[in-house]
Amino acid sequence: MTTPRPTRPTQEVATGRQQTTEPLTGLGGALRAALDGPYHPQRSRIREELDPAEVLRDPAMTTEQARAWTTETLARLSARGYGHAGFPQQHGGTGDLAVSVVDFEMTAHADLSLTVKSGVHFGLFGGAIANLGTEHHHAELIPRLLSMELPGCFAMTEVGHGSDVQSLETTLTHDVATDEIVVHSPTRSATKTYIGGAARDARMAVVFGQLVVAGRSHGIHAVLVPVRDEDGAVLPGVATGDNGAKGGLAGVDNGTLAFDQVRVPRRMLLDRYGGIDDEGRYRSRIEGDNRRFFTMLGTLVRGRVCVAGGAGVAGRKALSIATRYALQRRQFQGEGYDGEVLLLDYLSHQRKLLPAIATAYALGFAQNELTLTLQRVQGSGAPDLTAQRELETRAAGMKAVATRWANDTVQVCREACGGAGYMAENGLTVLRADADVFATFEGDNTVLLQLVAKGLLTHYSEMFGDLDMLGMVQFAARSFGGAVIERTAARPLLERIVGAAQRRSEEGPLLDRGWHVTMFEERERHVLDTLAQRMRTARKARGEDAFAAFNTTQDHVLMAARVHMDRVVLEAFVAGIDACADPAAREVLERLCDLYALSSLEADSGWFQAHNRMSAARAKAVTSQVNQLCADLRPDALALVEGMGVPTAWLGSAMLAGPQGG
Amino acid sequence: MTTPRPTRPTQEVATGRQQTTEPLTGLGGALRAALDGPYHPQRSRIREELDPAEVLRDPAMTTEQARAWTTETLARLSARGYGHAGFPQQHGGTGDLAVSVVDFEMTAHADLSLTVKSGVHFGLFGGAIANLGTEHHHAELIPRLLSMELPGCFAMTEVGHGSDVQSLETTLTHDVATDEIVVHSPTRSATKTYIGGAARDARMAVVFGQLVVAGRSHGIHAVLVPVRDEDGAVLPGVATGDNGAKGGLAGVDNGTLAFDQVRVPRRMLLDRYGGIDDEGRYRSRIEGDNRRFFTMLGTLVRGRVCVAGGAGVAGRKALSIATRYALQRRQFQGEGYDGEVLLLDYLSHQRKLLPAIATAYALGFAQNELTLTLQRVQGSGAPDLTAQRELETRAAGMKAVATRWANDTVQVCREACGGAGYMAENGLTVLRADADVFATFEGDNTVLLQLVAKGLLTHYSEMFGDLDMLGMVQFAARSFGGAVIERTAARPLLERIVGAAQRRSEEGPLLDRGWHVTMFEERERHVLDTLAQRMRTARKARGEDAFAAFNTTQDHVLMAARVHMDRVVLEAFVAGIDACADPAAREVLERLCDLYALSSLEADSGWFQAHNRMSAARAKAVTSQVNQLCADLRPDALALVEGMGVPTAWLGSAMLAGPQGG
Repeated sequence: MTTPRPTRPTQEVATGRQQTTEPLTGLGGALRAALDGPYHPQRSRIREELDPAEVLRDPAMTTEQARAWTTETLARLSARGYGHAGFPQQHGGTGDLAVSVVDFEMTAHADLSLTVKSGVHFGLFGGAIANLGTEHHHAELIPRLLSMELPGCFAMTEVGHGSDVQSLETTLTHDVATDEIVVHSPTRSATKTYIGGAARDARMAVVFGQLVVAGRSHGIHAVLVPVRDEDGAVLPGVATGDNGAKGGLAGVDNGTLAFDQVRVPRRMLLDRYGGIDDEGRYRSRIEGDNRRFFTMLGTLVRGRVCVAGGAGVAGRKALSIATRYALQRRQFQGEGYDGEVLLLDYLSHQRKLLPAIATAYALGFAQNELTLTLQRVQGSGAPDLTAQRELETRAAGMKAVATRWANDTVQVCREACGGAGYMAENGLTVLRADADVFATFEGDNTVLLQLVAKGLLTHYSEMFGDLDMLGMVQFAARSFGGAVIERTAARPLLERIVGAAQRRSEEGPLLDRGWHVTMFEERERHVLDTLAQRMRTARKARGEDAFAAFNTTQDHVLMAARVHMDRVVLEAFVAGIDACADPAAREVLERLCDLYALSSLEADSGWFQAHNRMSAARAKAVTSQVNQLCADLRPDALALVEGMGVPTAWLGSAMLAGPQGG
Repeated sequence: MTTPRPTRPTQEVATGRQQTTEPLTGLGGALRAALDGPYHPQRSRIREELDPAEVLRDPAMTTEQARAWTTETLARLSARGYGHAGFPQQHGGTGDLAVSVVDFEMTAHADLSLTVKSGVHFGLFGGAIANLGTEHHHAELIPRLLSMELPGCFAMTEVGHGSDVQSLETTLTHDVATDEIVVHSPTRSATKTYIGGAARDARMAVVFGQLVVAGRSHGIHAVLVPVRDEDGAVLPGVATGDNGAKGGLAGVDNGTLAFDQVRVPRRMLLDRYGGIDDEGRYRSRIEGDNRRFFTMLGTLVRGRVCVAGGAGVAGRKALSIATRYALQRRQFQGEGYDGEVLLLDYLSHQRKLLPAIATAYALGFAQNELTLTLQRVQGSGAPDLTAQRELETRAAGMKAVATRWANDTVQVCREACGGAGYMAENGLTVLRADADVFATFEGDNTVLLQLVAKGLLTHYSEMFGDLDMLGMVQFAARSFGGAVIERTAARPLLERIVGAAQRRSEEGPLLDRGWHVTMFEERERHVLDTLAQRMRTARKARGEDAFAAFNTTQDHVLMAARVHMDRVVLEAFVAGIDACADPAAREVLERLCDLYALSSLEADSGWFQAHNRMSAARAKAVTSQVNQLCADLRPDALALVEGMGVPTAWLGSAMLAGPQGG
């Protein structure tokens, strides 16, 4: 007797540190090239260059050891040029924002503390200087931050306000007599907190606060404040604290910062969007404090793009570990099965891992597209305003859905490995603990989904970032008359696919991509239309009733954002398949895309039936088809794992066969 | 302007260590009494007696510090009688199994390492001696384990086999010449692993392995093996290892044990169900190795009852922290809302916390009932066989659903507190990390749900614990002709409720309890009936096809178990309300039960519509009603938290107002 579905021999898995010569199946290599997308060469180069022994952290390290390891490892990588990509060429960077995102993702394959530490210094601190500063800031500081001579931090969040950044209490007051900015924390709740780098390493902080010039506030601005001297001693007027033990990210020294009338020269104000002239007058080309602030924030959108990418990688790494384990671990005899059953031959196990792998690919393609969009919109000259807001919407949405998926998926993977999954040496619990924070940093996911809905309701036409519900409603009321679903990728291809499907719908085959796309589009259109209607009604309420009226739409708002992102991600998957030249890989990707699409339809089958878009029979057929797709994809599981692109030597999982957890 | 839904003043929350005099609202106190159930006096006593300073662990402790703290704290508690309840009175216990479960739950309010460490020593090691041993084991060992002079461990899981315990490789071979049992690990995969106590503290192990007598194997038995001497030195022939860093439970010293021909006297065999007589012959009153083994395992069911209870408590503690935070944290201005909006006034936040609180109550009532059942079935004399198997089914199901809910809920709570939720000092991340293991220890949840389905399909009539699918199918085929839904609680009351509802169904009010119960029952009946039909068909397949045929039913099997447990839990909720004498508390519990029931119907609305048990209009109405119930319950949030029974001084959450995280 043989096992019903023959597995590729496990010998094909790399069995040692194979930095440069990791053997892949042909299909696995082709899938990896497809999912790597336009950055395949860059990603391959990093896979070859990074030494896993250098970038994998021992999970048994204490907090102090982990912090020291992270700082030292980042310095070593940076000395080789890592982290420099996003900065202007004239100051030592490459000017390529997309590559900086890819670099972030690739480090996330190894260690998330290292990734976040790098993100704080190069992405947030460096990004703020690059985007909010002007030429003299660039010339003076970028070389020093690239060399890591000047470790920095990004002091935005306060004890009292995280999501609602506009309400920060820190004051940045211009003293006309000395031409200085006085940085001050007027209350305990004005203390900056959760600031990566604040507890130990940062010498300089980008501090966000209310800028007061000549007695008048101009809203949130950012100023550079030295916080430690060259010996690491905290400077006068600055109080630092240590956030101590966290849920994860042991290598990142998160802490607090409070300022007691700390004075810095006026030139320390990052004044690209608003500054103070030599006469002590506030100057800005952008009218309105809120509009100006959200324009500033918009330039920092790369942070969310990076977190979305890092989360995607965390999920892929967990799936790689759990799937490889499920291809070696056997438990229980099966009737008619030769010997003990491989975990991955159980439908229940396939159901845990294969739809998640399908989503990993879907999100990977969408992330590639988002990264390209970032480069296109922000990579050169003044951005188109609508394109910029669409980018912000997409980044907020991708960050929310990718981090939600990652946290859920890493947990599923940890459980799918039983007791072994709970042992730190097997690589899943640290990943789980580290990725957890993605749900709430760089924007709380619930708040981000609300921003996505606002972007959709207002056609990206209004100032972004403000969560004011009445404003959202007014725009919805003014501008809506049937939601327009604008395809974001592969437009002609999607036209063709949908056009071919339209006359069939309910009776057509379950694997018709046109039907999938139509269902995703109709779901989004209906949810948006009805949301706009409810908002128009809510708008009529007054006083206390106004809050209640807007509040009752909240679950609808969140669903609108989610189904929009589902559709965007499906389109990216379709485009990703279209770009894949390898016929065998295309064929597998098509089935994987079927699984992604049908899993989404299955999860929302209550909605589709309640809105007369799916019959009872069709709903049942979708569930059967998902099971069938799991069985169909099972023989290609190893290639699917290889395609997800995590080198075996980077998995850091003792339970996997072979040395180095490979 | 005032906030739309006035909150009870937060001053009513305890603001200091209030061990004996925690002030509760009247409603909160009444809800607590109801949810504490028959164990209210016992729980209240422990709340008063345990000093939070003694049982709350500093999350910054290193692994070694955490292990030492856990061992010392447990010894201190034990010296005061904690952990002794479940043992026979003549040997120093109280003979009350239910109280031992309640004690486990109450410790879980404080620290899960302490709870699990206690569970390993008293519950698993002590429970195995009490249940599988005979009088001479009891007389000799129980006093020594109660005094903690003899720390023990429970060595069942091996590297090669966890869920499939019948396939353990360790051998226990009787040597007739010396009348000893030779304990041996023949392969690397026979090494015992994840064994709590093995790395550091345990002096004696209950070792499970294949008992070989006169050259013939009699299946799995357990033998007592000394593993360390009184100075803690590992004994000859025993090899111990340390599992090292884990996802959580830093205070528990999990490790490995391997045996190289270790000899112990025959009397060390725990021989209540099978032993060796003076002539060296195997003797047992139970025919069949499997039946005997599962009978032995069945006596150890309390472990699963305890884990279900511990998980419930972990979820309630997390909800207490997150809800109290949501009652003090404000973020964003709201249109028509006076000042910044309290987090709990957002529908999106209510949706995160209030249905979870409803489930916390539902599971709490079900747990009380399960604990009573344990005491009834196992607390005196020889148990009724069907009752015993029904208890095992219920315990497996409760363990699976309560731990799934707990892990999901703690994560939701952590995210609902934003960045603060990620800081260890706020109490959520340690809880999350510790509770994680509940999903896979004391039985992997997926395997447990399969056991539940088997119990249902075979009417508890066949040997429990074996996952053999063909066997399951044969019983299903033989015995099924329309599933019988046997109510497990409040039978006359449920008869009455359902009877009154039957003629209305689809058109009736959404808050009709009879409709809820009917829907839950019909869902279970239909899923079970169709599963039995599919199994009858699958049974006809042969060879490789047999595996495939059974395998395709797996998602159906898991659903059957889940919806069965949903119904059992709803019934327990109904019974719990019926037992509550306080009118105001009853009223709140009724609304909470509505929310529990409708949330379940909403989550399965795809299934209900696909099976013509819910119209499209009804499905939409259910969603609106869930939102309305959230709004209705919002003003009682503080009382609901108080009712969940975690003393404020035990929350260990720095972000909550007042000293001691209260």
